[in-house]
Amino acid sequence: MKFAIKRSAFLQQLNNVQRAISTKTTIPILTGLKLELTADKLTLTGSDADISIQTVISTTNENAQLEILQPGSVVLPARFFSEIVKKLPTDNFSIEVNENLQTTILSGPASFTVNGLDAVEYPHLPEVESSQQLTLPADLFKKVINQTTIAASDQESRPILTGVHLVIENQQLTAVATDSHRLSQRKIPLENQTASYDIIVPSRSLIELAKMLPDSTTEIELRISENQILCSFAQTVFYSRLLEGNYPDTTQLIPQNSETELEVNAVEFLAAIERASLLSHEGNYNIVKLTLAPEQQTAQIFGNTPEIGNVEEKLKFQKLTGKELEISFNPDYMKDALRSFGQSTVKIDFTQPLRPFILIPSENKNDFIQLITPVRTF
Amino acid sequence: MKFAIKRSAFLQQLNNVQRAISTKTTIPILTGLKLELTADKLTLTGSDADISIQTVISTTNENAQLEILQPGSVVLPARFFSEIVKKLPTDNFSIEVNENLQTTILSGPASFTVNGLDAVEYPHLPEVESSQQLTLPADLFKKVINQTTIAASDQESRPILTGVHLVIENQQLTAVATDSHRLSQRKIPLENQTASYDIIVPSRSLIELAKMLPDSTTEIELRISENQILCSFAQTVFYSRLLEGNYPDTTQLIPQNSETELEVNAVEFLAAIERASLLSHEGNYNIVKLTLAPEQQTAQIFGNTPEIGNVEEKLKFQKLTGKELEISFNPDYMKDALRSFGQSTVKIDFTQPLRPFILIPSENKNDFIQLITPVRTF
Repeated sequence: MKFAIKRSAFLQQLNNVQRAISTKTTIPILTGLKLELTADKLTLTGSDADISIQTVISTTNENAQLEILQPGSVVLPARFFSEIVKKLPTDNFSIEVNENLQTTILSGPASFTVNGLDAVEYPHLPEVESSQQLTLPADLFKKVINQTTIAASDQESRPILTGVHLVIENQQLTAVATDSHRLSQRKIPLENQTASYDIIVPSRSLIELAKMLPDSTTEIELRISENQILCSFAQTVFYSRLLEGNYPDTTQLIPQNSETELEVNAVEFLAAIERASLLSHEGNYNIVKLTLAPEQQTAQIFGNTPEIGNVEEKLKFQKLTGKELEISFNPDYMKDALRSFGQSTVKIDFTQPLRPFILIPSENKNDFIQLITPVRTF
Repeated sequence: MKFAIKRSAFLQQLNNVQRAISTKTTIPILTGLKLELTADKLTLTGSDADISIQTVISTTNENAQLEILQPGSVVLPARFFSEIVKKLPTDNFSIEVNENLQTTILSGPASFTVNGLDAVEYPHLPEVESSQQLTLPADLFKKVINQTTIAASDQESRPILTGVHLVIENQQLTAVATDSHRLSQRKIPLENQTASYDIIVPSRSLIELAKMLPDSTTEIELRISENQILCSFAQTVFYSRLLEGNYPDTTQLIPQNSETELEVNAVEFLAAIERASLLSHEGNYNIVKLTLAPEQQTAQIFGNTPEIGNVEEKLKFQKLTGKELEISFNPDYMKDALRSFGQSTVKIDFTQPLRPFILIPSENKNDFIQLITPVRTF
C-alpha cells in the first residue's frame, strides 16, 4: 500500500473515525485504525464493537489531493498514529507499507516507521441488509438526540434504560428516554415515509453520532436491521448495535391534566435553579424546594444545607395559575431539562407534591415533553 | 459588618486571593476567605500557611463602588462563597453579617445565608520587617520566574531543590533552579540597588505569583525577611515562606568550553523534538538521540521504541561546528528548555556524550543558560 495525501483533509476524517476507537477494548486489534486503499479511494475504519465508523476519501475529493500509488491495506495503532499525523511538519505526507507491514510515514525531513497489523485480522463490519431507508434532516435529528439522551440512564443495572427508544410509525418518529426518575419524549413528523420500526439505540452511540454530524450536513439516511442501525451522511457511515429487550411502556407515566401551572423563561429559571443548587450540592441531599402561591402571585425557590447555609429567591414568571403547591426535586434534573429548551418559554404542569410534573414548550406543546419525578422530603 | 459593592470588581480580587486558598489544608479556618471592613476599605485575605495573599479594595476605587455601611470582619467558606458571587443575578450585591456570624448576601431577588467564622480565629500574616525594598520591572520578574521554575524539582526527597535560588548582590539578581538532571540560570541587572540577599523561594510560590501578576502592573516591590518574602504590586500583597538550608553550589556545573556547537531556531527545533518524543514517550525509556556531523554539515534526531516503531528527522540549523557527536537525552527536558527561549535563535554547546550541555541565546549569551544532563544509553 502506498499513497500521498493532504494532511488537513486526512486528519479531519481520522478524527471522525477515532470517535469509535477506544483504548480500553479487550480486542487488541480494535485499538487500531484500518486503512484500505483501492484504485479510486481510501477507506478509514474504526470500531469498538458497539460503534463502528467508516469514512471514505476519494480521488475526486479536491481538498484531499489523494494520490494512489499502490492499493493495499493495513491496521495502525490509532492513538499513536493520529498523534504523529497531527505533528507532521508539512502539509502533505505519504504512507507506504512494506511486506512486513512496517509502515513508513514521510513528511518533509521527518520519517516515521510504525509496526502495522494485518488488515485481514480486523473484524468485519456488521451487514445491514435493508431495502428501506429513512431520510431525516440532520439538524433536526441532532436536536432529537440532544433533547432525549439527557434522560437516559448511565447505570448498567437496567441496561435497557441506557438506550433511547425510537418508534417510527404513522409517518412519525417518537424518541423516548428515561432513567426512571425523569423522562424526555420528542416527536417529529416524517413525511413520505412508510417504514415502521421499534428499536432501542444505546444513548452513548447517539451522543457520538450527534457530535460528529457536521453543520454542513443537511440530511442523514438511516437503515435498520434486526440488531444494527446504520446512519450515512457526507462520506461517512456510522454503525451502532441496538439494545435487545422490551422498552417499558412510558405512555402511562405522563400526566394528562394539571392542578398548578407555571410559565417561565427557560434561561431565567435555569439561572435561579443554578443558584439554589449551589447549596443543595454541598449537602447530603441534592434537593431544592419550590413554593407556588397563585393567589399571591408569588413563586419562590429554596435551597438549604444546615451545615453551610441556605438560599431563597423570588422567581420571575410569565404566568402562574391553579392551586397552591410546595414541591421538592433534584435540581440537576431540572437543569438538564431546562437547558434542552434553549431560549424558549416553558410551561410546567404540576399535579400533586409527590406526582411527576412535566415541562413543555409554551408553543408546540405536543412535540416535546420533559418529565421529572419529585422527591419526598417528609 | 455591612457593605455593598460591584460584583465584577469584587470577583476579580476574590479570584486573586483564592490562589492562596487550598481545600486540602489541615487548618480548617484556612479553607476560608477573610473579609475585613474598616472605615475606608475592604481587605480580602487568603492563605495556605505557605503562601498568603492580601488585597485591598478602597472606597476610592471607582470600578468597585464600595459602600461601607458598618465596619467589621468575618471568615467565609472560600470556594463556596466564590461560586455564589459568580452566579449572583445582579451587578451589585451587599453582604451583611449578624451577631451570630450568619452572613446574608443579597443580589436582586436572590438571598443567600451562609454560616461565617470569627475572624479573630484567623492566623496572623507573617511580619516582614525590612527597611530595604527592591523594585523590579514586573514583566522581567515574571520572565525570570517562568524561565527558571521549569528546572526546579517536584520531588520532596530533596526539598531544597523544589525552590529557586535567588542571589542579589553587586547590583545583579541571579536566579537558579535545578532538579539535578537539568538547570536553569537567569541573570538580570539591578540598577541603584545596594541590597544583598541570598534566599530560596519555593517554586510553587513563584509560579502562583507569576500567574497573578496583571499585565497592567509595571513594577513589583520585594521585601525580604529571615523566612519570608513579600511582593507588593497594584493593591495586592503576596507573602511566601522561604526554604531553609543551603542551596548547592551550581556554578561548578556549568561547562566553560565546548567541542561541538549547534545553532538552531528554537521553535523549529522544538517541533522536531516533539515529533521524536512521540515515540520515546510510548516506550520504557524516554530518550531521543541526536547525531551531529559538522564535516558533512548534517544533524539528525532519532526516537525509537522497538514495540511500536521509530522516527528520524534531518534537522535544519543555522550553524554547526566542532567535533562529531552522538548524544542522548530526555526530550521533555529539551522541550521545556526550548520553550523558555521563545522565538529566538539558540546556541547549544556540547562537550562530550556523557557531559552536561548548555543552551544559551545566540544574543546576550551571559544572561540565560539552560543546562541538560545527557543519558547513558550503552
